[in-house]
Amino acid sequence: MTTPPRHLPDPHHPRLTRAVEGHDQTGQRQSLRVVEERPLTIYLNAQEIVTAMTIGDYPEYLALGFLRNQGMLRPDDQVTAVEYDEELEVVIVRTTRQTSYEEKVKKKTRTSGCAVGTVFGDMMEGLEGLTLPQAELRTSWLYALARQVNTQPSLYLEAGAIHGTVLCQRDEMLVYMEDVGRHNAVDKIAGYMFQHGVGGADKILYTTGRLTSEMVIKTAQMGIPVLASRSGFTAWGVEIARQVGLTLIGRMRGQRFICLSGEERLIRDADLTAVPEEDRKHRRKGADA
Amino acid sequence: MTTPPRHLPDPHHPRLTRAVEGHDQTGQRQSLRVVEERPLTIYLNAQEIVTAMTIGDYPEYLALGFLRNQGMLRPDDQVTAVEYDEELEVVIVRTTRQTSYEEKVKKKTRTSGCAVGTVFGDMMEGLEGLTLPQAELRTSWLYALARQVNTQPSLYLEAGAIHGTVLCQRDEMLVYMEDVGRHNAVDKIAGYMFQHGVGGADKILYTTGRLTSEMVIKTAQMGIPVLASRSGFTAWGVEIARQVGLTLIGRMRGQRFICLSGEERLIRDADLTAVPEEDRKHRRKGADA
Repeated sequence: MTTPPRHLPDPHHPRLTRAVEGHDQTGQRQSLRVVEERPLTIYLNAQEIVTAMTIGDYPEYLALGFLRNQGMLRPDDQVTAVEYDEELEVVIVRTTRQTSYEEKVKKKTRTSGCAVGTVFGDMMEGLEGLTLPQAELRTSWLYALARQVNTQPSLYLEAGAIHGTVLCQRDEMLVYMEDVGRHNAVDKIAGYMFQHGVGGADKILYTTGRLTSEMVIKTAQMGIPVLASRSGFTAWGVEIARQVGLTLIGRMRGQRFICLSGEERLIRDADLTAVPEEDRKHRRKGADA
Repeated sequence: MTTPPRHLPDPHHPRLTRAVEGHDQTGQRQSLRVVEERPLTIYLNAQEIVTAMTIGDYPEYLALGFLRNQGMLRPDDQVTAVEYDEELEVVIVRTTRQTSYEEKVKKKTRTSGCAVGTVFGDMMEGLEGLTLPQAELRTSWLYALARQVNTQPSLYLEAGAIHGTVLCQRDEMLVYMEDVGRHNAVDKIAGYMFQHGVGGADKILYTTGRLTSEMVIKTAQMGIPVLASRSGFTAWGVEIARQVGLTLIGRMRGQRFICLSGEERLIRDADLTAVPEEDRKHRRKGADA
């Protein structure tokens, strides 16, 4: 088995940002780089499933991960092809199993929050009977990861207005995905894991976004027992994390963090006096939501 | 005609946050308040339209604004009732006009980004031939508004993990809505405007979130000529703003901001030497996305 590739952000990729001219507070002309936002229509075999707005890198991972997180692609499905047409902005996932999600696609409209980017009813289904694996989580890893994520050259640091999600193992970043929608970033990671047969049991998921119910559900579905963020919590996110036994760490800033679920995995091995306060220069700049 | 009510955040409302117990980095027990996230199913007459995840304040405004921003409720529609059932988590909007959006609801699933919380195809439709009104925008108002939004007691300052959108007139905040999804916050403002017959021509919309295509489209549909944010831009957001002639101001931090569209409305009347740098205490804390 080959080692899966490592993917880190490529902030200078010409397709991901665009220079735009404007003026600042003094009337001075300014050119700044802003992130792209493109439609990508995902098909599963003959059926059109959804059009997502994305920065457009890794369309194959996004398609696979979206379908996987929606339960339309099963863990044991044989994918025979993933065809991406850049011009048509379409990606087609083909499987040996015949698929038909007419009813499911219809149901989604009816019962779930397109308004907030979720297909909630369907997603909760996948959590029945789920138990996340035992794992240890050292605070020294958490601090090392936070430092790496906050200083890694990224579209966020280059152009802002974007979310990041990072698949980590111990104190190492394996895959750092960014996208205009944070659900795309996490879906691209799910697609990566599916394509390369990477398991979640020994992983940590780090997100720049909030710890909402939807993020918690997706993390649990990916079999990852730990979700960490510099942002805050929602009540339902905490509740679901406790139900499925996910370790939920939020409000990571410098030394500080709060663990609201799955405390038993935490090993406080870090020497807090050695953890620096956030470097102002590399601090994430604000509510870039 | 009566003056429409002013709505500011009510961060201590017991229904909007919940105390949750956890542990901090030192293992110390901590109780913190986190925002609620509840489903709200919106009906238009006999048809179930969508289930949104929301903090749950102002369900009537959310329903009206969502339907309005989707083009399912027309500006001249007579709303005969807005019935909210707290227990069932349902809100029903009734109109004199018979409505049927079976096809539209179906189309949404097919062509738009549930994955990113948008019903894009349909929303672009409403922009054909739209021209936003002339208006002046004084930088002194922008700085005054930014200071008020950042210091106004809010769920954001209380519990984090939430978005704010503020309807403003000159240097005054009229309605400050917060929600777990920023589209809910802006939809609640649209519902407010619809219910109270408030026009957008002399208003400014301020958001804590990013200036994406979707935010720009909704602002334009509400007839508001100015959208400002402390966050950043996406390329498509800028493009659409320029198409419809919307003034787009981003990256507002202390004295600094960038205007990428609609520069002609800007009047730089503020004395920049008198604009303070951001107060660290009240600074928005990070990528609470």
